[in-house]
Amino acid sequence: MFSKSIVKYIQSLQHKKFRDEHRAFVAEGPRVVGELLKSRQFKCNNIYATSGWIINYKKDLLTEHQEKITEVKDFELEKLASFSSPNSVIAEFRIKENVESVNFNNRITLMLDDIRDPGNFGTIIRIADWFGIENIICSADTVDVYNPKVVQSTMASLGRVNIIYGDIEYHIKNNPAIKTYAATLDGKDIKETGKIKEGMIIIGNEAKGISSNVLDRVNEKITIPRYGVAESLNAAVATGIILYALVE
Amino acid sequence: MFSKSIVKYIQSLQHKKFRDEHRAFVAEGPRVVGELLKSRQFKCNNIYATSGWIINYKKDLLTEHQEKITEVKDFELEKLASFSSPNSVIAEFRIKENVESVNFNNRITLMLDDIRDPGNFGTIIRIADWFGIENIICSADTVDVYNPKVVQSTMASLGRVNIIYGDIEYHIKNNPAIKTYAATLDGKDIKETGKIKEGMIIIGNEAKGISSNVLDRVNEKITIPRYGVAESLNAAVATGIILYALVE
Repeated sequence: MFSKSIVKYIQSLQHKKFRDEHRAFVAEGPRVVGELLKSRQFKCNNIYATSGWIINYKKDLLTEHQEKITEVKDFELEKLASFSSPNSVIAEFRIKENVESVNFNNRITLMLDDIRDPGNFGTIIRIADWFGIENIICSADTVDVYNPKVVQSTMASLGRVNIIYGDIEYHIKNNPAIKTYAATLDGKDIKETGKIKEGMIIIGNEAKGISSNVLDRVNEKITIPRYGVAESLNAAVATGIILYALVE
Repeated sequence: MFSKSIVKYIQSLQHKKFRDEHRAFVAEGPRVVGELLKSRQFKCNNIYATSGWIINYKKDLLTEHQEKITEVKDFELEKLASFSSPNSVIAEFRIKENVESVNFNNRITLMLDDIRDPGNFGTIIRIADWFGIENIICSADTVDVYNPKVVQSTMASLGRVNIIYGDIEYHIKNNPAIKTYAATLDGKDIKETGKIKEGMIIIGNEAKGISSNVLDRVNEKITIPRYGVAESLNAAVATGIILYALVE
């Protein structure tokens, strides 16, 4: 059982303002919570779980987090949840400090220029995890990674990919030896790009694409071949196809 | 201006039961409505639009649909909309009869085995349109294509791809000459499949994958190579990568 002030606090973390203020975010459901605990990438502050989850959950992690667990009933969990089916566990984690220095050598880095849809962003993090991408650089206007919908749609990949908010133009200027690829609708066919082992791949906003400041600085514009009529592809789908085509 | 009964009727079409009963569905926003009118794939019953939309919209289509247009104010449009920003126009279209016979020769056909997420389904329709796929066969349990979220996330591709509800197993059995490919996590690397000009590509449910009845009948299981750790890819992202890899 918990107090009204806890309900109010956890619910407040649905909003970026309060996440920034308290440097904390919430994850829901056994899969996402379990993977975040396992990854040890985020310090866990509190776990609210049903007895069912507590019994099933791995003993070693339980020992480690014993003092953080509050056993709750289903109906209590519902009060904390931002999704309709809270699903046995909700945990509060500490937000990581933003990394300032990024190593671009010998790896492919994804750069998101103003992705606004939480579902797209979460799906892109999951794609990056599938293709072994270590770092994603996001422009300041990209949706907050700790938004509950983003956390949920990463499907537990959040602990395995570093999300770094920063200035894409700055990183391009500061790393002139790293080749840059911009996903556009009028570039070179990705089939001709060939496999790469190093580079920055830039994905633009769902409606406006990549900002012109960034576009002016890239080495190569790349495009997914179109055989039909659709005007564009969803940003996450485009990211998946481009990584499939380019990652060796 | 319109009556309360129209508001009630249009709102009722947010539910499959009433869409089936009235054989009608709703599209919102200038892009989706405009493309559906242009494609002439769906008979338009009614258009509710602001004066701004009416002035801007192409004259020839306006003549054709003149008697169907009701000019409304923004606040009136909001009452009809299922999305928070109704965006100048809402139109009611007639649902097409389900096609019974499908031609599988000399073309790639997408088969969806129980896709449940409306956003995924809409995105898959858009991907099919990008790659020039003509027909999508959906199992009976696939989400309804006229669900407002599906219609919206197709981003106007709905008029250009045929959506056919049917029995995937039946189509496989009845077309033994057409090769079948099932997207799984334990199949042959899609890089080895090579380009195809004909075939059925089967995509499974977001959580459970492809049902075993269908899986038992396929010629080839195919898999997207994984370089990282994520357990799976989003169903729409997987569809995009597979079509990119296989479509010639």
